[in-house]
Formats: sequence, structure tokens, C-alpha cells
Amino acid sequence: MPSFRVTLAYDGAGFVGWQRQATGTSIQGVVEDALGDLDQRDVGVTAAGRTDAGVHALGQVASFSLERSIAPDALVRALNARLPDTIRVVDAAEAPSTFHARFDARSKSYRYRIWNDDVLVPFERAYAWHVPGRLAIDEMIAAARLLEGRHDFAAFQGTGSTTQTTERIVFSSRICGGGPQSEVEYRPDFISEGPRRTSGLIVYEITGDGFLRHMVRNIVGSLVEIGRGRRDVEWIRRVLASRDRTYAGPTAPAEGLFLMRVDYNNPDVA
Amino acid sequence: MPSFRVTLAYDGAGFVGWQRQATGTSIQGVVEDALGDLDQRDVGVTAAGRTDAGVHALGQVASFSLERSIAPDALVRALNARLPDTIRVVDAAEAPSTFHARFDARSKSYRYRIWNDDVLVPFERAYAWHVPGRLAIDEMIAAARLLEGRHDFAAFQGTGSTTQTTERIVFSSRICGGGPQSEVEYRPDFISEGPRRTSGLIVYEITGDGFLRHMVRNIVGSLVEIGRGRRDVEWIRRVLASRDRTYAGPTAPAEGLFLMRVDYNNPDVA
Repeated sequence: MPSFRVTLAYDGAGFVGWQRQATGTSIQGVVEDALGDLDQRDVGVTAAGRTDAGVHALGQVASFSLERSIAPDALVRALNARLPDTIRVVDAAEAPSTFHARFDARSKSYRYRIWNDDVLVPFERAYAWHVPGRLAIDEMIAAARLLEGRHDFAAFQGTGSTTQTTERIVFSSRICGGGPQSEVEYRPDFISEGPRRTSGLIVYEITGDGFLRHMVRNIVGSLVEIGRGRRDVEWIRRVLASRDRTYAGPTAPAEGLFLMRVDYNNPDVA
Repeated sequence: MPSFRVTLAYDGAGFVGWQRQATGTSIQGVVEDALGDLDQRDVGVTAAGRTDAGVHALGQVASFSLERSIAPDALVRALNARLPDTIRVVDAAEAPSTFHARFDARSKSYRYRIWNDDVLVPFERAYAWHVPGRLAIDEMIAAARLLEGRHDFAAFQGTGSTTQTTERIVFSSRICGGGPQSEVEYRPDFISEGPRRTSGLIVYEITGDGFLRHMVRNIVGSLVEIGRGRRDVEWIRRVLASRDRTYAGPTAPAEGLFLMRVDYNNPDVA
């Protein structure tokens, strides 16, 4: 039984998230159905990150085993022929039979997109959080960096989680695009960059060894509180120290969040 | 009766184009309905470019007169409150009563987006033409520039047009993003830039004093013929000289085309 690792991109709108639910269409369910059709048996798929409803992915990684043998390139084509155009296999490779997309992940990277302008351009409506009004970008940049390192992120964990430990290592937490008003390098977006109006896109990127439920969205909600001037930069330290969800900002909406990449230690699957 | 000039962004998917048709929803119709609701009377709107079904806009310009007087900022908010989120007013200004969005336009700029990669990422499925297989980008760059200047573009005019003259001036015709394989500067796209895989986005931009029906899409279809190696660079000159639509390449699909901006001579409306 050959084992595989695939990289998936998907538009999360209209899905109940990665994981199968009692009702609604899950990305896992659609991918497992496509693999079942290909292998003529039930195939179980494990993903590196169980993205929530509405969350997008450009570099989700999933693992599974098949009975039939197939070249990775042929697997990409066969799966894409069976998947809707909202889910694409962008890469496939054979993997050791012991490979597990979630347990073997060394780090994950997420991107969160904020559209900070009075008017939300139509092309961003499903792919960014619309936050009108001027944001204090320099304060957001400073606060984002304070989250780097090993911390207890309990204050940023969504309610109802049953994780045993809430300590995580954040390798990088950066605002990496902040419009022309800031001194942050700004990379224009091809779709949204319009005439006569500077783009309002703010992009936040975070890489860590693991993430609690809603952790990125709760961090972004807190950074925007700081950007709006409701909190100062140092407040983010007090939120961390509190270990109490009620101290942090609101949960940013799902549509701005993208799972960008997953990295592994094992050189066989890098 | 104060007159106005507004800049519009819209997602063309699901619309029959700018202009009212016997059936289907037009952007003109939706904007006129919103203005009619605001002014409590029928309001006629003129656009700089009558974009076809499925074509997008980031900088369409439209002109109209109202009976009520309203500040431009308030007009932006009042219209956006009445429009679907697929159509946004991004800017408004008072204009001389003689201003006409179409007749007064000095130049228009269009962008065409090609996704040149085996796999079409989900976020590009409505905003780019998917052209798999390696394209000869340097030949496309060279051919694009041959269209600059005053030419008779009859060969690139869609059938069924009744334009009196087919001569137009193209101020600029450039491939302005061609992926890492080419020497063209590449500006990454925030949404589509994924991991482990270089982006396949090719962007073509054209500015001219006027455009024939389907002209940009027929030019792009011809450039892709050259990129695929079916034609050489000089062929584009022979197509121009032929003044015969059957010599040019196929019409590229609507979803890759964006009306980016319209420029005017009149400093009052610049």
C-alpha cells in the first residue's frame, strides 16, 4: 500500500471546514470521496491542520494510503479530475508509510488578510476582513512581534477546546504589508490594486509549532483592537499573562484566514 | 441638477455586462436602480467603457445628474448602501454638467490576467484565464510591444461590430508580470502566491485612446498563440496588416479582463 503526501489549496467558503461534520460539506469528505472513487475502497485522509468553516488554504498537507500504485503526477491529475474547482491538489509525493500529516508537522504558517479601507472592493469580499477606519499600523506591528517565542496562548484559545497544553512556540508573528502610510514593505495585490486609490490591504503572517483553536483569528482580533486605538501595545502582554480568553479581542472572521504552508522535519517528505 | 462622476469596481461574474439587455442583470441597470431609489426619479447613467458579460472593473467611470444635491462622500455611502457587494462605488466627485464619461475619456487601461500553471488555484478561477503548459514569455513580451502606436485594429475587432473607424492609438501594450522564469519584474499576488510552487500569473496591460469590441481579449488570445509556439512574434504584424478578424487568435475568456482606469483631459474631472 503506497502512502502519499499531497498539498491542497481550497476556497473555504461553502464548506463546514476540513473535518467531516454531521451536516454540511467538509473538505475532508470531498477529498475522501474522490480518493474512494480512485481506489475503489474507503480511503481515510489526515490533514496537518483542521481548518474551520470558511477558512481557506493554499498549502494544506494531507496524508493517506492507496491500494493501487500510481505515479504522483498522475495522482494530481486523477484527483483534480474528481474534485470541484474550489479544491485543488497542487502537489503530490510518495511518503513513508509511517508519515502522518498532523503528528509529523514541525511548523505551520498562516496568513490573515485585512482590507483597511472605507470601501471593500468586490474581489476581496470573500478573502479579507473589512475593517474601515484608519488603523495605527505601527502599533499593530510592534504588538505582533511581542507574540514571538514560547508562550502560554490560553487567552487566545477558542472556548470549548479540550487541549491538554496551551503552550506553543511562535517562530514568527509579523505584519508584512501595511499600505503606503506605514514603513512596512508593501507588495501590491494584482486583483485589488485599483486606480487613484492606494490599496488598503494589511497582511499578517504567523508561523508556529502548533496552533490552538481560533488562535490566529483571536490574535488578529486583538491586534485590530490595538490598531483602532482601544488598547495600547503592551496590553497584548497582559492578555498573554492572563491566560483568560475573556481578556483578548474578538475573533476575526474566517474569510480572511489562509493556511499557507506546513513544514516537516523528515527530509523524505520535505 | 448637480452632475457627478463616480469610479466603480465590480465583479463581472453573473452580470450580462455593463449595458442593459432584454434579459439578465446588467451593472448599468443595478446602478440606475440604486440612483433612482436615491433621487426618487429615473436616472440615466453613462459609463466610459461598456464592459461585456463577465468582464470585471476596478476603475470604471460613470456619469449622471441628480435633482437632489448631495456631497460626494455622502453619495458614495448612499450608493454603496443600495448596491450589492459585487458592485462598489470607490470614489465620487462633482463634474461639470457637460461632462460625459464616454465621450470625454482620453484613454482607458485594461489588465488581463493569465494563470499559466498546470493547476488553477481556486482563488483565481473567476479572475484569470487558465492556460496550462509552458508559454514562451519573451516572445509574448516582444509581440505585445509591436501593438503600440497608431494602427488599424480591424483584425482584433469582434464580429458584428458597426464601428465607423477601426483605427486606434495604443499608448502602451506590455506583459508586466511573467513569473520567475522570465526576466520581467514579477509582483507576487497576495491571494494566489502559494508554497513550494512559484506563481504562474502572467499579467498583460494595455492603455489606448479607445478599444474596439473584444479587442483586448482578441489581442490576448493572439499573444497566447505566440506563447504556445504556434505563431512567431512577427505574425502579430501580419495580423494587424490583414485587417481580417479570421487571421487573429481566439477570443480570450471574459473572466481574465479588468477595466483598470479611465483618464480624462479635463482637469475639473481628473
